[in-house]
Amino acid sequence: MAIHTAVIFRVELDKSKLTFGELATAINKAGGDIHAVDVFQAGKQVTILDITVQLNVNAHQTIMDTIRGLPGSSIIHMSDSTFLAHLGGKIQVTPKAPIKNRDDLSRVYTPGVARISTAIHEDPSKAFSLTIKRNTVAVVSDGTAVLGLGDIGPEAALPVMEGKAMLFKQFADIDAFPICLQSKDTDEIVQIVKAISPTFGGINLEDISSPRCFEIERRLQEELNIPVFHDDQHGTAVVILAGLLNALHLVRKSIADIKVIVCGVGAAGAACIEMLLAAGVKQLIAVDRCGALVPGTPYHHPTLDRIAGKTNPHQLHGSLSEVIADADVFIGVSGPGVLKVEDVKKMAADPIVFAMANPEPEIDPDAAEPYVRVLATGRSDFPNQINNVLCFPGIFRGALDCRASHINETMKIAAARAIASTISPEELNEHYIVPSIFNDKVVERVRNAVVEAAIDTGVAGRIPPEFRVEDQADKEPQSAK
Amino acid sequence: MAIHTAVIFRVELDKSKLTFGELATAINKAGGDIHAVDVFQAGKQVTILDITVQLNVNAHQTIMDTIRGLPGSSIIHMSDSTFLAHLGGKIQVTPKAPIKNRDDLSRVYTPGVARISTAIHEDPSKAFSLTIKRNTVAVVSDGTAVLGLGDIGPEAALPVMEGKAMLFKQFADIDAFPICLQSKDTDEIVQIVKAISPTFGGINLEDISSPRCFEIERRLQEELNIPVFHDDQHGTAVVILAGLLNALHLVRKSIADIKVIVCGVGAAGAACIEMLLAAGVKQLIAVDRCGALVPGTPYHHPTLDRIAGKTNPHQLHGSLSEVIADADVFIGVSGPGVLKVEDVKKMAADPIVFAMANPEPEIDPDAAEPYVRVLATGRSDFPNQINNVLCFPGIFRGALDCRASHINETMKIAAARAIASTISPEELNEHYIVPSIFNDKVVERVRNAVVEAAIDTGVAGRIPPEFRVEDQADKEPQSAK
Repeated sequence: MAIHTAVIFRVELDKSKLTFGELATAINKAGGDIHAVDVFQAGKQVTILDITVQLNVNAHQTIMDTIRGLPGSSIIHMSDSTFLAHLGGKIQVTPKAPIKNRDDLSRVYTPGVARISTAIHEDPSKAFSLTIKRNTVAVVSDGTAVLGLGDIGPEAALPVMEGKAMLFKQFADIDAFPICLQSKDTDEIVQIVKAISPTFGGINLEDISSPRCFEIERRLQEELNIPVFHDDQHGTAVVILAGLLNALHLVRKSIADIKVIVCGVGAAGAACIEMLLAAGVKQLIAVDRCGALVPGTPYHHPTLDRIAGKTNPHQLHGSLSEVIADADVFIGVSGPGVLKVEDVKKMAADPIVFAMANPEPEIDPDAAEPYVRVLATGRSDFPNQINNVLCFPGIFRGALDCRASHINETMKIAAARAIASTISPEELNEHYIVPSIFNDKVVERVRNAVVEAAIDTGVAGRIPPEFRVEDQADKEPQSAK
Repeated sequence: MAIHTAVIFRVELDKSKLTFGELATAINKAGGDIHAVDVFQAGKQVTILDITVQLNVNAHQTIMDTIRGLPGSSIIHMSDSTFLAHLGGKIQVTPKAPIKNRDDLSRVYTPGVARISTAIHEDPSKAFSLTIKRNTVAVVSDGTAVLGLGDIGPEAALPVMEGKAMLFKQFADIDAFPICLQSKDTDEIVQIVKAISPTFGGINLEDISSPRCFEIERRLQEELNIPVFHDDQHGTAVVILAGLLNALHLVRKSIADIKVIVCGVGAAGAACIEMLLAAGVKQLIAVDRCGALVPGTPYHHPTLDRIAGKTNPHQLHGSLSEVIADADVFIGVSGPGVLKVEDVKKMAADPIVFAMANPEPEIDPDAAEPYVRVLATGRSDFPNQINNVLCFPGIFRGALDCRASHINETMKIAAARAIASTISPEELNEHYIVPSIFNDKVVERVRNAVVEAAIDTGVAGRIPPEFRVEDQADKEPQSAK
């Protein structure tokens, strides 16, 4: 996939040796599209120009060499719009209201703040109304499974976590703050997140490698009274379920009747399998690089043993190519190229294929398209992008608004249904099974569904006003609501 | 000290029993000052009014009882402007630029962000330019020494830390985020802060009780390559030094010639003593509740032993009242009432008294005023307020801008001199020895002085452009500056 970016080259041009037109032509030939030219400094013989060039990142070096190679032109420096967007970080922490004078100061700081602290000391649950705990989620990573880059460490993970925080705010008005940890030890990570948890209303775990991520999430869920959610597991699973529910509508199959192959038993795969089983799939076969997982086989690996034990009721053995025969659904959360066209041809009528490996899916979408009824990937340049952004903002918005102690399976399934139902039956078609991430109805639908599910399952600490059973004017003092 | 606040009472008024005028008169008599009245709902017999009343918090209950006590009026609810200002927390985390479309998304998130992560993975120092590490400070507390409230825990401390974050942003454009810890264990706190440090450019420790705060700060300073600064220690010390330098100008005394009493050897006192010694005070006597600390006396307490060993060269023994004879300067960082007028009368000519205990200083300022040449307190309702806000924003601004690995003694003293010199010799007088916290010249002066001091002492990791020795156009690619 071609990644384009805009680079601004500051070029010193010796007009006695080279004309601007010659330089521009050379840049074009090397693959650059000139979008803007600004004179930085004009002299008799030498001019310094800022030239904005749109280019494929692969062509960057060629264009640099081209400019340098011409007699009469040299590069003073280069700035890249992606790098520019990151200078000094992408998020900021600002007061909700300015401190204009001592009066303001005495209200938000000393001495007024002492009364708020005292109120919370007397009743710690008031932190949920009187502090950022109301609306703030920590985005926690140890940098061990970042995007497709793997274990790159906490500093390198930070830009991704900042981006995640931007998305939380932009889509669900949640204040999210990145916390990148210099530790890979499970016990330490649990201890650290537990220790910082008083500050936050929820914890979003991100880019923590499997299998440690399962234990970290489980233990934090047990020990904390605020929601803990590993998006790489459950965000993916929720959106996959949403897409699947809509795809099944299209092909008129029932979730209890279908045979589903899930290829890949990492974080996303394991969570997806759990979600599909909870949603009612009866025949699900998990496949990893060694073939189908069979119940009763000892894998000496907690995740594989766990998954094997609850899937593949007919005990099918073999490779992906063998067990995929007559499958209605293939979900790939593994790597590129594992699914062949021949495999797809063996599937049942109206095959549904979600090939989620990023950036290269399990099968080339163009190759699969003729043989598949509904195709989805994680890529933005194909229809049906399965993107976690459809889930995590709304699910946390709902959890925060009802002060849920957990994000449980019911809430996740409710979120999936809400995402799916954003698309009306009239709009639903093979190339439109999940809404666009920019569809502004998604977050509110998900939020409402999640709040209801939290209330129904008894994990809501607070009932938002619009969910209360009867309208009543409060008679109690609300000096700290 | 009277704490005033504005409370909005929602009152149901039965006009057949009580007129608004009668209600208003009763509120005034009970000590409330009516600032606004709004009709929420008007009916034939019953009207609901929102009445904004400015009141002393001590009168709150009386006014409530008054309103309820009148036949025909009842309180539906009350909102307090201080509580209102805290609803949902006081800070927010927002993107610096909005994500308007997929183009923006691909630049600040996938796939563009992968290139930034890769660049940092290859050179972790780039995190200081490409992430929030450039501009972000953690405000870390365990809630054990919050304001005058003591050990109230992390949730109750959170509003104070949010307020601190507001001040960092407002005064020095620093993004500060509160981290309130559910741990009081020294080793754990060191471990946790170390683990989260990749995210931050600096650590501000706050409201952590002594003596643990000394070891926590010291160990973090040793183990981290970003500045670690306990504001309760050093912020106070820096501003005290600033005020003292100006006071000494006024009284025409030299710092090397004066006799200084520091009363109180907690966090602020110990740091203040270290700073005054580093600034050149030769005769400093530390006094705690048991009297003067004498070198050679075993106190079996690390702080007291440390301080005793480096002060009181003449080995004076006795209580405050005894050792204060002929002292030029008294600095109180202890508790109310420890300094008597008789003690002040024993001091040298032109006594300088800084009575910092909050909210009640070591001596009543009005009682001390006739006998003191220069008087300062921590209170905003007297001249010469020694307020840490004069120090921490500028000192961190400077440290971040030059990527200092530490905030050392030279930088702190430089900050103190910069604060002091904000007041010109013409402006300087007994009631104006430190600038107002709203003086907008302070932060830049402190920042510049701190950067110079960091460069001079070799702890600056980056020389800001305006401090570079010669002007040169960069020839190197600056795609990640």
